[in-house]
Amino acid sequence: MSPLVAHDGRESADAPQLAKRILLGEPLTTQQVDDQLLPKRMALPIFASDALSSVAYGPQEMLMIMLIGGTALLTLSPWVAAAVVVLLIVVVLSYRQIIRAYPSGGGDFEVAQRNLGEVPSVIVAAALLVDYILTVSVSIASGVDNIISAVPQLAGVRVELAVGFVALIVIVNLRGVREASAVFAIPTYVFIGSVVVMIGTALVRMLLGDAPVAASAAYTVHAESLGQAAVVLLILRAFSSGCSALTGVEAVSNGVPAFRTPKIRNAKTTLTLMGSIAAVLFAGLTAVALVSGVHYAENPCDLVGFDCTSPQPSLMAQVAAATFGAGSIPFFLIQAATACVLLLAANTAFNGFPLLGSVLAREGYAPKALNTRGDRLVFSNGMLVLGLAAAVVLVVFQANLTSLIQLYIIGVFVSFSLGQIGMVRHWRRILRGGAGVAPQDADGGRRSARIGLAVNSAGAVMTVAVLLIVTVTKFAHGAWMVFFAIPVLALLMLGVKRYYRDVEQEIALDDTTHFGSTGDVAIVLVSRLQKPVIKALDYAIAARHEKTIAVHIALTPEDGEELQRQWRQHGIPVPLVIVDSPYRTFARPVEQFILRYRERHGPSVVTVYLPQYIVGHWWEKLLHNRRARRIAAQLMLVHGVTITLVPWLLDSSELIYGRRSRPLPGQQRAGRPVADEGRSGDRR
Amino acid sequence: MSPLVAHDGRESADAPQLAKRILLGEPLTTQQVDDQLLPKRMALPIFASDALSSVAYGPQEMLMIMLIGGTALLTLSPWVAAAVVVLLIVVVLSYRQIIRAYPSGGGDFEVAQRNLGEVPSVIVAAALLVDYILTVSVSIASGVDNIISAVPQLAGVRVELAVGFVALIVIVNLRGVREASAVFAIPTYVFIGSVVVMIGTALVRMLLGDAPVAASAAYTVHAESLGQAAVVLLILRAFSSGCSALTGVEAVSNGVPAFRTPKIRNAKTTLTLMGSIAAVLFAGLTAVALVSGVHYAENPCDLVGFDCTSPQPSLMAQVAAATFGAGSIPFFLIQAATACVLLLAANTAFNGFPLLGSVLAREGYAPKALNTRGDRLVFSNGMLVLGLAAAVVLVVFQANLTSLIQLYIIGVFVSFSLGQIGMVRHWRRILRGGAGVAPQDADGGRRSARIGLAVNSAGAVMTVAVLLIVTVTKFAHGAWMVFFAIPVLALLMLGVKRYYRDVEQEIALDDTTHFGSTGDVAIVLVSRLQKPVIKALDYAIAARHEKTIAVHIALTPEDGEELQRQWRQHGIPVPLVIVDSPYRTFARPVEQFILRYRERHGPSVVTVYLPQYIVGHWWEKLLHNRRARRIAAQLMLVHGVTITLVPWLLDSSELIYGRRSRPLPGQQRAGRPVADEGRSGDRR
Repeated sequence: MSPLVAHDGRESADAPQLAKRILLGEPLTTQQVDDQLLPKRMALPIFASDALSSVAYGPQEMLMIMLIGGTALLTLSPWVAAAVVVLLIVVVLSYRQIIRAYPSGGGDFEVAQRNLGEVPSVIVAAALLVDYILTVSVSIASGVDNIISAVPQLAGVRVELAVGFVALIVIVNLRGVREASAVFAIPTYVFIGSVVVMIGTALVRMLLGDAPVAASAAYTVHAESLGQAAVVLLILRAFSSGCSALTGVEAVSNGVPAFRTPKIRNAKTTLTLMGSIAAVLFAGLTAVALVSGVHYAENPCDLVGFDCTSPQPSLMAQVAAATFGAGSIPFFLIQAATACVLLLAANTAFNGFPLLGSVLAREGYAPKALNTRGDRLVFSNGMLVLGLAAAVVLVVFQANLTSLIQLYIIGVFVSFSLGQIGMVRHWRRILRGGAGVAPQDADGGRRSARIGLAVNSAGAVMTVAVLLIVTVTKFAHGAWMVFFAIPVLALLMLGVKRYYRDVEQEIALDDTTHFGSTGDVAIVLVSRLQKPVIKALDYAIAARHEKTIAVHIALTPEDGEELQRQWRQHGIPVPLVIVDSPYRTFARPVEQFILRYRERHGPSVVTVYLPQYIVGHWWEKLLHNRRARRIAAQLMLVHGVTITLVPWLLDSSELIYGRRSRPLPGQQRAGRPVADEGRSGDRR
Repeated sequence: MSPLVAHDGRESADAPQLAKRILLGEPLTTQQVDDQLLPKRMALPIFASDALSSVAYGPQEMLMIMLIGGTALLTLSPWVAAAVVVLLIVVVLSYRQIIRAYPSGGGDFEVAQRNLGEVPSVIVAAALLVDYILTVSVSIASGVDNIISAVPQLAGVRVELAVGFVALIVIVNLRGVREASAVFAIPTYVFIGSVVVMIGTALVRMLLGDAPVAASAAYTVHAESLGQAAVVLLILRAFSSGCSALTGVEAVSNGVPAFRTPKIRNAKTTLTLMGSIAAVLFAGLTAVALVSGVHYAENPCDLVGFDCTSPQPSLMAQVAAATFGAGSIPFFLIQAATACVLLLAANTAFNGFPLLGSVLAREGYAPKALNTRGDRLVFSNGMLVLGLAAAVVLVVFQANLTSLIQLYIIGVFVSFSLGQIGMVRHWRRILRGGAGVAPQDADGGRRSARIGLAVNSAGAVMTVAVLLIVTVTKFAHGAWMVFFAIPVLALLMLGVKRYYRDVEQEIALDDTTHFGSTGDVAIVLVSRLQKPVIKALDYAIAARHEKTIAVHIALTPEDGEELQRQWRQHGIPVPLVIVDSPYRTFARPVEQFILRYRERHGPSVVTVYLPQYIVGHWWEKLLHNRRARRIAAQLMLVHGVTITLVPWLLDSSELIYGRRSRPLPGQQRAGRPVADEGRSGDRR
């Protein structure tokens, strides 16, 4: 017996099961869910890694776009950066309201559902799902970028690296939230710390008149002179790219249930903390990058003086090199921390996506399978779906950050906007009816509701505005794919919902449901007279059906006669009927036999006994033709027929399942088992 | 009801079934097998297309190798060609003996098995299987070559074309032998006719002093001067490539059973006819090619004066162009006929491979599935396997004829040699003991046996010699792959044989088999109280088990209590047991329940009733989690447990299978069905 079968209350283990255990650890009981709750110090890294890590590419992509307008335009960058930071603050404040109003973890989806109705909520869900996938792709692409910036030799295996990391993160996450957080806490803190130190050092050096100078500061770019409109558009595009730093802010609001009590307070604090850190890092990095004169080009070959055959180092890498010197220990430390936190950012999605997926499944918008917790209490299926989707995206886009960024944050801002609009409605309703406000603190409630209304109104206006800007500036650059994907997904969800509802109605008890089927005949399908068939006959007899008939489908008359002979010879206590099958089919003749039987004996419930082989190794399946399976599938379509599968465990199954149908020599009554004769026969 | 269910004695049809019918036509009864037998005029094209078509590449590859030694060496070509023709004649004579001695269609495999034992026979089988695959690949590659020679624009889609043709041939063949032959007879005859006419015309023109001149006659090649040894080796290599013209000779001997009576005479005549035609065409084409000065180079860029960016026209194309003028009607006719016959040659393998596969399956050397005839009386699985393998080979070798030829004919000559050696033994045995010779014609028997011995001895010597030459000259050029594949395949077959034998012994009746299992308890698994569950309960009650228990696996205590309530409310006449499952597993708790039950009530056969959904569309499967399936798989491992699947056909299954479990409104007793309320509910 494999050792794992011993564990109480688990699926009896087979080989894959065993592998699963080793990768994922021991299963947990439902009660243990509570012990999995997160303290703030753990929740921050888990839910914040996305928002924080995005500063690793946010400033880079922003300045990159500005550079298209030439070095002159870079001077406007601080204003763009400021706009992003302001937006960040507003969004954070708005989400504090959402956490307060809807702490169940539904986030924007729940808000939209409660306040805007089904369709908007499904759109929000679709948008979020798309964006979770892109979060994984973008974060990993950027992480690989930073690894390559430190170790250029790896430039050749960019995509392989990216996909490999996806796989790694999936596995780590399948082990469950708790361990995940533990693994992820350290690097996030290291990242925050080291980047803050870097920014500090750089600014101090600047004040001391020894400002760091980036390697790319020397490179010039030949910028085509742009008209007013073009410049404005470029600035807006830069802003949109910068906004990628806002992604992940919603993560906390979706994760409230995972917090330790007081959940709401803890979640809000974590969110504020995260927002402030993100703002500081974003502003700081942009500043240092501008000071040290980093020139990061969309197409490295536009950089006059740069050998564009080698990979272009990321902004983070250039700043680090400028501040601490390329190849210095702190340089590598920063690159490592950045890469880690980016890869871990992908992890945020692996908390959010399956959670949202399960919510959708529970509401009937997604396949039920997304709501079944795995052994480790995580929604395994959701994680696998996300991992697969992200891997595909990475391969399709060859893990190219700049082209992925084009699709990114549209989803986020779709859900931002709808979420905020929903909140505005929410507060309005409360102020109107006071619904959901306990009388005693009605005043406090009304005051805070007014605040909420103000905050979320501001949030709604800004996010909608940004959504428009992002759409206009990115649509042609690939964002159209997202605008295609979101409605398709939304429609699918609505379809699934409708399907489940129809099935529910189909199988719901009603006045047409009734007991009282009569007639009880068992049919044992017999191919050749062997142990599995005898076992089936034995069980059929044991079940004492009103009538038990053995049926043999004869492809040629000879088959039938031969079996008849053996049947008599062994004196089997069940009548044998031979049915000819000129077309070499099996199910159909049985069906006709059943119909003829019913004509004679009236309506009756028919139980068809089918011996079924259980094999040990996957390859054995190739050697047994699936006849039993096919027959069962066909007969299940016949009214009033049930299929009884009588398993026969071949000896090989003992290796895997620790069980077999054939008694071991010891357990046998008289005589040596035939098999041994056979084996000794071989030696001859 | 879908129309196809109407046909008697067929599997009730679903959508794929329908597509199948349209592609493959109506099924046939086993009796109809006889009507499928082939008259000679049909058998020739079917079994000969391989041998005949190979003259399309045999001479080309032979002269190509010679050309490596420079134009001077070409003068020796006639002698090499002569050697090939002689070999061809000997092999044909030898196979006439095999047909006579072993008319059952086992061919070399049977000969080796009867006279040399298991291992050699399995090696022969492996060699033949490998070669069937290569026949398809080589023929199609060459066919595509000739198409491209006529329509150079297609050069870009060579591989796609090749794979497409494989698919086409598979489909045509799945329709069954008869139709196939009809389709294939015409082009084969057109090919023979047109090529003969071409050769004739060319020779006549030569006699009239107006010998045709090939376009490539002008091109010179810079040949490096070779030493004696090198030249000899080169000539041997040319000879080996020329021998590819012999492939397919064995086809007839494997196909004897498919002939009309008198099978043996007809088969022998067909073989002789085929051999003579092949010899004539091979010799003729080589002659005309030499006369018209065709220069075909392994690497077209070696041809001084030829623009090697465009595809090099095949030898056949060059000869046709030289004789009738490029772009003339006869030119295109010949190219078309050649292409057709080459593609059809692949068809030979689609007759041989599945036939051999089924023989192997019957003997237990290959999966049983290879011996199940499809609706159309052809061994469908074998054809699919062959098609797939050939497609893979074509893709891997980019449909490059010259590199495929390197792997080719080794398999053929392995089986040739072993077959001939086997025959020598066969005749020896007959001459010794006269075994298998009826007394009356003992003398005639002995005389013919002596002839047979002589012929096959000659055949054995020559084929073995050629096998050695081929091996030496081709091994380094890729043949090693074949030398790797054949033993691997052979070992697999021996393994399969051993596996089946062990299983047979495992399940054979012996003194440990006995009836008399006792105790009869039915367990109905209940998730929620819905129609499918009621149906399962109803059937369990109808089967009148000694004891019937409903079991609910409760993931949370609440579930259980809620169900208990409904149970009482509906007053269901079966006791309900709630089993808690802290680990959210289903099968394991049921197993434990069964074990506990047995502890109390002693050993008993347990029948577990599982409701199972049957859905119409494939995508619906994604929306129902496979829980029932998983539970069944787990419980089937428990000793003394059988699984009874109670199917519930969702309404959607009516679209596909024409049946549903929920009664149609008409069939219902009192009251409107809930479903309708639901639907009207939607309109609200």
